[in-house]
Amino acid sequence: MQTDRLSKQIEFIKEIDKIKYIQRRTKLINSDRHENDAEHSWHLAMMTIVLAEYSNTPIDVLKVLKMVLIHDIVEIDTGDVFLHDTTKNHDNTDEETTAAKRIFGMLPPEQAEEFIIVWEEFEEGETNEAKFAKAMDRFEPLLQNASNKGGTWAEYNVDYQRVIDTAFKIKKGSETIWSYTEDLLNKSVEEGILLKR
Amino acid sequence: MQTDRLSKQIEFIKEIDKIKYIQRRTKLINSDRHENDAEHSWHLAMMTIVLAEYSNTPIDVLKVLKMVLIHDIVEIDTGDVFLHDTTKNHDNTDEETTAAKRIFGMLPPEQAEEFIIVWEEFEEGETNEAKFAKAMDRFEPLLQNASNKGGTWAEYNVDYQRVIDTAFKIKKGSETIWSYTEDLLNKSVEEGILLKR
Repeated sequence: MQTDRLSKQIEFIKEIDKIKYIQRRTKLINSDRHENDAEHSWHLAMMTIVLAEYSNTPIDVLKVLKMVLIHDIVEIDTGDVFLHDTTKNHDNTDEETTAAKRIFGMLPPEQAEEFIIVWEEFEEGETNEAKFAKAMDRFEPLLQNASNKGGTWAEYNVDYQRVIDTAFKIKKGSETIWSYTEDLLNKSVEEGILLKR
Repeated sequence: MQTDRLSKQIEFIKEIDKIKYIQRRTKLINSDRHENDAEHSWHLAMMTIVLAEYSNTPIDVLKVLKMVLIHDIVEIDTGDVFLHDTTKNHDNTDEETTAAKRIFGMLPPEQAEEFIIVWEEFEEGETNEAKFAKAMDRFEPLLQNASNKGGTWAEYNVDYQRVIDTAFKIKKGSETIWSYTEDLLNKSVEEGILLKR
């Protein structure tokens, strides 16, 4: 027995294997090896489970997990957009929407629609779940950079103010993790691995 | 503000980054690049979300996700145990229990206990959630091997009967995916990438 529905789902499962080749700018903890999007997404999922208690509001953890697990799948087609690349549009672009439609569109129609809605909700960042998911997405590279003598901050000459400005979304998801982030960034300035002009 | 509780959780989050270095025997789809445990765990989580409807019984998807996301964390200390290595004990060994206590034990006590219980439930494979999680864990390498001219079946001289015997756990989680698996393995025999003696 092999239904058309299941075949579509298996083709999708095979297609998204490609996310394991999408390399991010950030590197693993205490490492010079770049992280890929599958590893990144796994880590955000673990962070969600461990840190959900710090959300500013009650959240549906299952929905946040779906968000962080799928949030970078569009990058199979678009590639990774570096957070501190000021020449790139960081909003939900036409290119990303096309990618979402192609990749999630491999699934049976109502499942494709569900995935696209979850991805759009994450991108818009307005619901409690999206705010927390975005907080995790911003928080992970800070831990990595702080462990790597500044990591991409040093490599791409990103200063304290720019890091604070982009990390600020963490506050919308979790005041507690934002407070930890402020401490971490101040400590990084003291250690000389993050430049305060 | 930086509580002792949050500090413990962050140390755990940094520690589990090491799973990204634990290499499996299987390789990515249509690839000669080995998969690591973080990528593998992410893929099982995605498969769980996409395929949950085929579980033999209703399941708590959030619990299955926790299982598949954490199931290989012990391998940070023990290393990957290859499914078809007949010289190794594949049951929940003392070494794995020690690893679970060390790594999950970095978390605040009640959270550590929760993670250990979820991991043990997965290992025992008796609840509906554990059966489905184990089905995903067995199913993913079959898709990989079938896409890689036999992959580890060919590389380690594993025949059809051995593959069927180890894949049989899929049936306990999902009759539908088991049926798909039987078709896939028969097709692999026909294609000459899986040996039927």
